[in-house]
Amino acid sequence: MQIDMIKKDVLCTQELSVDEINALLKLAKAMKAERYSPKYNQLLKDKTFLMFFFNPSLRTRISFEAAATELGGHAQFLEPKTMRLKKTSKGVEVQAGETIEDAAKVLDRYACGMGIRILETSVESYGDGNALLREYAKWMKVPIVNMADDKYHPCQGLSDMMGMQEHRGDLKGKTVLMTWAHGALARSYCSVHENLLISSRLGMNVKLAYPKGYDLPEEEIAKVKANCKANGTKFEIVNDPESGYTEDVEFVYSRNWFGPDFYEIGKEAEIARASKMTEWICNQERMDRTNNALFVHPMPVDRGKEVTDEVASGPNSIITDIAENRLHTQKAIMAMTMAGLKVDI
Amino acid sequence: MQIDMIKKDVLCTQELSVDEINALLKLAKAMKAERYSPKYNQLLKDKTFLMFFFNPSLRTRISFEAAATELGGHAQFLEPKTMRLKKTSKGVEVQAGETIEDAAKVLDRYACGMGIRILETSVESYGDGNALLREYAKWMKVPIVNMADDKYHPCQGLSDMMGMQEHRGDLKGKTVLMTWAHGALARSYCSVHENLLISSRLGMNVKLAYPKGYDLPEEEIAKVKANCKANGTKFEIVNDPESGYTEDVEFVYSRNWFGPDFYEIGKEAEIARASKMTEWICNQERMDRTNNALFVHPMPVDRGKEVTDEVASGPNSIITDIAENRLHTQKAIMAMTMAGLKVDI
Amino acid sequence: MQIDMIKKDVLCTQELSVDEINALLKLAKAMKAERYSPKYNQLLKDKTFLMFFFNPSLRTRISFEAAATELGGHAQFLEPKTMRLKKTSKGVEVQAGETIEDAAKVLDRYACGMGIRILETSVESYGDGNALLREYAKWMKVPIVNMADDKYHPCQGLSDMMGMQEHRGDLKGKTVLMTWAHGALARSYCSVHENLLISSRLGMNVKLAYPKGYDLPEEEIAKVKANCKANGTKFEIVNDPESGYTEDVEFVYSRNWFGPDFYEIGKEAEIARASKMTEWICNQERMDRTNNALFVHPMPVDRGKEVTDEVASGPNSIITDIAENRLHTQKAIMAMTMAGLKVDI
Repeated sequence: MQIDMIKKDVLCTQELSVDEINALLKLAKAMKAERYSPKYNQLLKDKTFLMFFFNPSLRTRISFEAAATELGGHAQFLEPKTMRLKKTSKGVEVQAGETIEDAAKVLDRYACGMGIRILETSVESYGDGNALLREYAKWMKVPIVNMADDKYHPCQGLSDMMGMQEHRGDLKGKTVLMTWAHGALARSYCSVHENLLISSRLGMNVKLAYPKGYDLPEEEIAKVKANCKANGTKFEIVNDPESGYTEDVEFVYSRNWFGPDFYEIGKEAEIARASKMTEWICNQERMDRTNNALFVHPMPVDRGKEVTDEVASGPNSIITDIAENRLHTQKAIMAMTMAGLKVDI
Repeated sequence: MQIDMIKKDVLCTQELSVDEINALLKLAKAMKAERYSPKYNQLLKDKTFLMFFFNPSLRTRISFEAAATELGGHAQFLEPKTMRLKKTSKGVEVQAGETIEDAAKVLDRYACGMGIRILETSVESYGDGNALLREYAKWMKVPIVNMADDKYHPCQGLSDMMGMQEHRGDLKGKTVLMTWAHGALARSYCSVHENLLISSRLGMNVKLAYPKGYDLPEEEIAKVKANCKANGTKFEIVNDPESGYTEDVEFVYSRNWFGPDFYEIGKEAEIARASKMTEWICNQERMDRTNNALFVHPMPVDRGKEVTDEVASGPNSIITDIAENRLHTQKAIMAMTMAGLKVDI
Repeated sequence: MQIDMIKKDVLCTQELSVDEINALLKLAKAMKAERYSPKYNQLLKDKTFLMFFFNPSLRTRISFEAAATELGGHAQFLEPKTMRLKKTSKGVEVQAGETIEDAAKVLDRYACGMGIRILETSVESYGDGNALLREYAKWMKVPIVNMADDKYHPCQGLSDMMGMQEHRGDLKGKTVLMTWAHGALARSYCSVHENLLISSRLGMNVKLAYPKGYDLPEEEIAKVKANCKANGTKFEIVNDPESGYTEDVEFVYSRNWFGPDFYEIGKEAEIARASKMTEWICNQERMDRTNNALFVHPMPVDRGKEVTDEVASGPNSIITDIAENRLHTQKAIMAMTMAGLKVDI
């Protein structure tokens, strides 16, 4: 079957079909195998990809800009502060005087696609970031790519799956443990949501471990459960730091995330609370109880809190491979949605 | 006749010949018709175009950077704050210790051309921004392009004319109404000056409407009058918000600008005064009294103040087309002045 | 002999062999002679060069970004403030939560090379900047290029030599006067060190003039002395502003630098002290006592303090040529270390 994603927005993997996910992963692997091949290096020739960063980023900016370069195009790095925008009370930057409609219609004429990054620290309440992306998508014909918002991070989810497949083959029926970890960074849900959604989508069993009170948003968990149900796989939640590490687990994803009251209590209170739960860490002793599990993380890793050095730098850590895959999955997304490359699956 | 603009600075359309203006417009239209054609995509191959932004910008930055990309070159986005410069009392950034002579002579060796943007908010007094461009132009052999200063905005003027021609053909003898509008943005003269200068230059009748006290600089109005006189066209000023909208008017340009005392009274006082004159707005009722006039604006539009939503989003609004044309006119300028492309007119 | 520098870091010219220095200079001159030749414009095709600027820069940023463009690649301009980093007490930006190991291993997958600029104003104590470069170099396989740190500036040293050779041929046995100058900029050692090291390396006699108390770091002077000894050339220090200008001098490099107590007393105290010594300036009267010496400076020049306008803008000033050479030497470094271009010397 030939998959065509021309002009398609990529806002969350849950909104793609499994065929589309598989097509993107297949293309990303082919692009990794032949990185600078003439097959791919003219796909965005002379084209402009716009990157709107409401929040700073290391891997995302570099990997998207490199992706455009490797496809023969050019990515423009844009920060709202360098444009004529105004700040709201919590730092969201919005068009001053100019509506998103007006701005978006013009950007649509200049670019072959646009990426937007807007995290929880730049929005008033949960979901505002994602809503901003959808507002741009509404007015623009060229594809919008989510470079991480307050809800989703599709490029990270695809890169996780690609790395997990590279190391363990087909993921169907395998088990991933997604476990909360303590830390001083009050981290967003986006990467966690995306991994849960896409791994359950691709037929994995999902174990979720977190302290009482750190529930993820109901609506996302409902989707994960539905994905598991559709695939006949298991979904389980435990509320202690130990019992998730069982002998069926092949992947451990240990990551801090903030509690559901984050938008009310603020960053400081969240960090104070989370920092106390030092028993929530991924360590070698726990990993030893699994099925030789690989360590997965979207980076940056908060070493000594989310995971011990022994695990993070150990032979079963695939974090660098996954980070590299950001480049390849993003190239695949751009090639399919902006250049119209079709993929047979 | 073959027009050659190699190495020519583009600081104001008034300093170009009408033949040069026509050549740029002809080339811009050809480039729009064949946007990614091999005819044009090697003109700046491997060349560097420098962009100095003393003021932030959305359209200007994106369209210039995309223009360089589409010609095969690369634009560097430079903000004085990222260079070793110092601030003066009103925020103008100037070379610290280093003279413009020294900096310019080196930039001249690295680049194929340079754009500069410096608006009224970054200068001490009217004309300082334009003078800075001329100082760089003095020391550099490669062309300087005005990306909007406190006096002129040639790329906007060219884009206005291109859009107006695309929709209404030859502009000779047609009438444009340039009307002041209220608003909270205390806007610069540059786009307004440029439209008045270039439209009068291309043989249009010009109507200017603004409240008493909002006169534009004498020297620019003198040029517009002289342009009209040379072409045998009409130039008229009215001081009320209604009477400019007459049945001969084919284009309405409704835009806020600050009063002549702006540099003394400051932004807040200007905004307080202008915001009260709510009768100065372009609305459908007024548009209905014209010759089915098109709505023209350089964007960003201050909706609800400069113009109603009904007009700005209506079928006669050509603002998005004009904004798109920024890309094409800038490519034409770069191709002719930096790559030496000649155009037959 | 064929010189191969593939994957080699360029942190200081003292750590290159003389053959490698000569190969880079030979290639830089060839690249200058045929600037946009197809010989060179595909060497970094579709490749990404990362530039980390902990300190702002004019020439360095523009020349490195242009260098990547002219080799067919793309340089990403990255400032730590736009990434997820934290500040230390004196403003050094370091990875927050994320170790350099983690960041570097990922960057290594995305890029063909990385440049880092970190000057004395961004570090706690002398050498910290250079140590940061070595830490990145430790974890990355792709080459690290020093874009100026608190100790060295190899690209500047190579460009100095290239300009001096262009104007005076073989430098062996010729004499350079490196003289301190007063000024209000409290300048770093990096360019001064590099010129002393590379000129002594290439067989020049070195005269060093500075006021008592402005000694350069012992360890660097020891290297310069050893270089001179190995070449059988003269090394001399004088502590007055006049006696260095003798008839054997063919190059005068007049430059402010801060005293050895800079990191304790701070910038203001340093500037107050240095600004009083107005007799330390390069002027025409002094230049007239030399062997028609050329004026050398890494720019930006502090005119009226480091040198008079008469000398800086005079016929013997080669500062613009040297600044231009930054582009060519950097292209040569990137071509040899990142694209594996080999050079016969």
